[in-house]
Amino acid sequence: MIDGMLSQLSQWLRGEGLESEIVISCRIRLARNLSGYPFMARATETDRRGISELVQRVSDELFDRSSFYFVDIDSLSSLDRMYLLERQLISRELAESTGTRAAVIDKNESFCIMINEEDHLRIHATTSGFEPMRIWQALNEIDDKLSSLLSYSFHPKLGYLSACPTNVGTGMRASVMLHLPALVVTKEIEKVFRSLQKVNLAIRGLYGENSQPVGDLYQISNQITLGKTESELIATLQNFVPQILNFERQSREFLLKEQSEILLDRCSRAVGLLKTARTIGSVETLHHLSSLRLGINMGLIDNITINDVNRLFLNTQPAHLQKLLGEKLPQNERDVARAKYLQINLGSI
Amino acid sequence: MIDGMLSQLSQWLRGEGLESEIVISCRIRLARNLSGYPFMARATETDRRGISELVQRVSDELFDRSSFYFVDIDSLSSLDRMYLLERQLISRELAESTGTRAAVIDKNESFCIMINEEDHLRIHATTSGFEPMRIWQALNEIDDKLSSLLSYSFHPKLGYLSACPTNVGTGMRASVMLHLPALVVTKEIEKVFRSLQKVNLAIRGLYGENSQPVGDLYQISNQITLGKTESELIATLQNFVPQILNFERQSREFLLKEQSEILLDRCSRAVGLLKTARTIGSVETLHHLSSLRLGINMGLIDNITINDVNRLFLNTQPAHLQKLLGEKLPQNERDVARAKYLQINLGSI
Repeated sequence: MIDGMLSQLSQWLRGEGLESEIVISCRIRLARNLSGYPFMARATETDRRGISELVQRVSDELFDRSSFYFVDIDSLSSLDRMYLLERQLISRELAESTGTRAAVIDKNESFCIMINEEDHLRIHATTSGFEPMRIWQALNEIDDKLSSLLSYSFHPKLGYLSACPTNVGTGMRASVMLHLPALVVTKEIEKVFRSLQKVNLAIRGLYGENSQPVGDLYQISNQITLGKTESELIATLQNFVPQILNFERQSREFLLKEQSEILLDRCSRAVGLLKTARTIGSVETLHHLSSLRLGINMGLIDNITINDVNRLFLNTQPAHLQKLLGEKLPQNERDVARAKYLQINLGSI
Repeated sequence: MIDGMLSQLSQWLRGEGLESEIVISCRIRLARNLSGYPFMARATETDRRGISELVQRVSDELFDRSSFYFVDIDSLSSLDRMYLLERQLISRELAESTGTRAAVIDKNESFCIMINEEDHLRIHATTSGFEPMRIWQALNEIDDKLSSLLSYSFHPKLGYLSACPTNVGTGMRASVMLHLPALVVTKEIEKVFRSLQKVNLAIRGLYGENSQPVGDLYQISNQITLGKTESELIATLQNFVPQILNFERQSREFLLKEQSEILLDRCSRAVGLLKTARTIGSVETLHHLSSLRLGINMGLIDNITINDVNRLFLNTQPAHLQKLLGEKLPQNERDVARAKYLQINLGSI
């Protein structure tokens, strides 16, 4: 059933919204636990099933039943789990752990409730562009709905309780995914890293915690959730991210002015390589797509759109590629298939 | 006047002759000194001028005057000297030294007499393909002609005397330029290096002594000239080179069988990069042209010929590029011009 999403672009890849030439997406997630159930580390299979069934029942009551998928993650093939991970709907932890676990996935992919991940509930909402307040309002509404039928573990002094102390309080993590190729090229990205630490913001790669940055994509998020309100945490992002955006914009202008040939060369070669490779890995693909994204946003490439890039970005990832081809393939065959896919889809440019 | 050669392919790049899918060219040079003049290290400017004028006079007498250029190297611009070096007509030593020095260059570029290089005369003849005996016969004829009018320094026991002891005897160096991409990829080239040492053959890069191999091109030549006849020295090459050719052929077959996708990928990407780069250095260009050469010779690329590759190979070198454009350019502008040249000349494939 989740194959229904295969033909659409994930919400976070719509390429719309404010500052979308640098900000890919904006996401907020809430960690919530249910009173009356032990935290996940001590939950039995019976507890897990109970939680899952409860959340399913509540979702059926709160949301239009035709508007979401209730997905039993444990019964999915590893390919389908990777597929949901690549769409950033579920976390690596939910994909790779064992035992009863599920996800309530909005069919527009604008929000998802992960069940039995690190906490009983991890609710997240995502939008493209830099719209943290808008996404917070949407998510807050969902959270309010859920809390009307679920009893959350809440401490009057500490706030929402969570499995890991780092999430106690608001249980919130707000993050933005930024495309920072110019800061990477000019090596100024290190400065961004250092300044982020000072304001308690964390920086991560494309796939969250512990992942390496690929394709010049960085996720920036709040590190602390305790002692501040949700609005204060979002305000930190709202105050700080524009500085990074300015910094990236200045670097792009510098490159265009001082190294336009190198910049043009990078963009042009990226198109050339994506069109002519006969075998290509997903990381190399992301790297070249990053150059395309930069080239389009800087007006150096005009026969392809950001939407095209986002579609290639999503569909050339391993699980997506295999889902599209309708078969599981070993890596070497996947790399050949990816090259073929790129060649066909970039053939006209 | 030497610009007349600009529109033609150098003799050694004709892409014809035996084993031409691996053997680019075959060259023999003779070191000769004139009795009555001190060796170069002790020659005065008057000596140098005397030698130069003598060889010019003799050449006028021996050869059809419309068939060769007599080039006063010292009066050439550095660009023109580099241009002759890139065509492998003169050595780096002749190009970069000072004082009266000259070259008698056959207009077909099949032979050249360098005057006042390390020895009074360095006579070399080149042909494409693996034809060492044929080229030796041609060169021997020229040497016989010259010796009919010039008095060589010759010792009845030692043979031809030369400025450097390594050239005493026959004064001959016979060399073949091989394209060995498959041995490089499979890392078997090291074995070739070791076996060459055992039979007193030296291996060098594209531009002779002390030069790094680029574009998978290697020059193999005899290391000793003393105690053997010319025919024996050539026989060593004739016996040994076919073994390297077989080794390279086996490696190509192995790649085609076991790693055909990687091979196809390399060739296809090379075309893509050469067509889409907007700035490209000469070494990177040689690297990709090597892939094109391999692809054509293995039947993987069919819309471009070896002749096209050889023309690009010659014309994308720094001095050639500047001669074709009619202006001297700094390196960064040269790299942009090279990319443009490649784009135009590969546009149709």
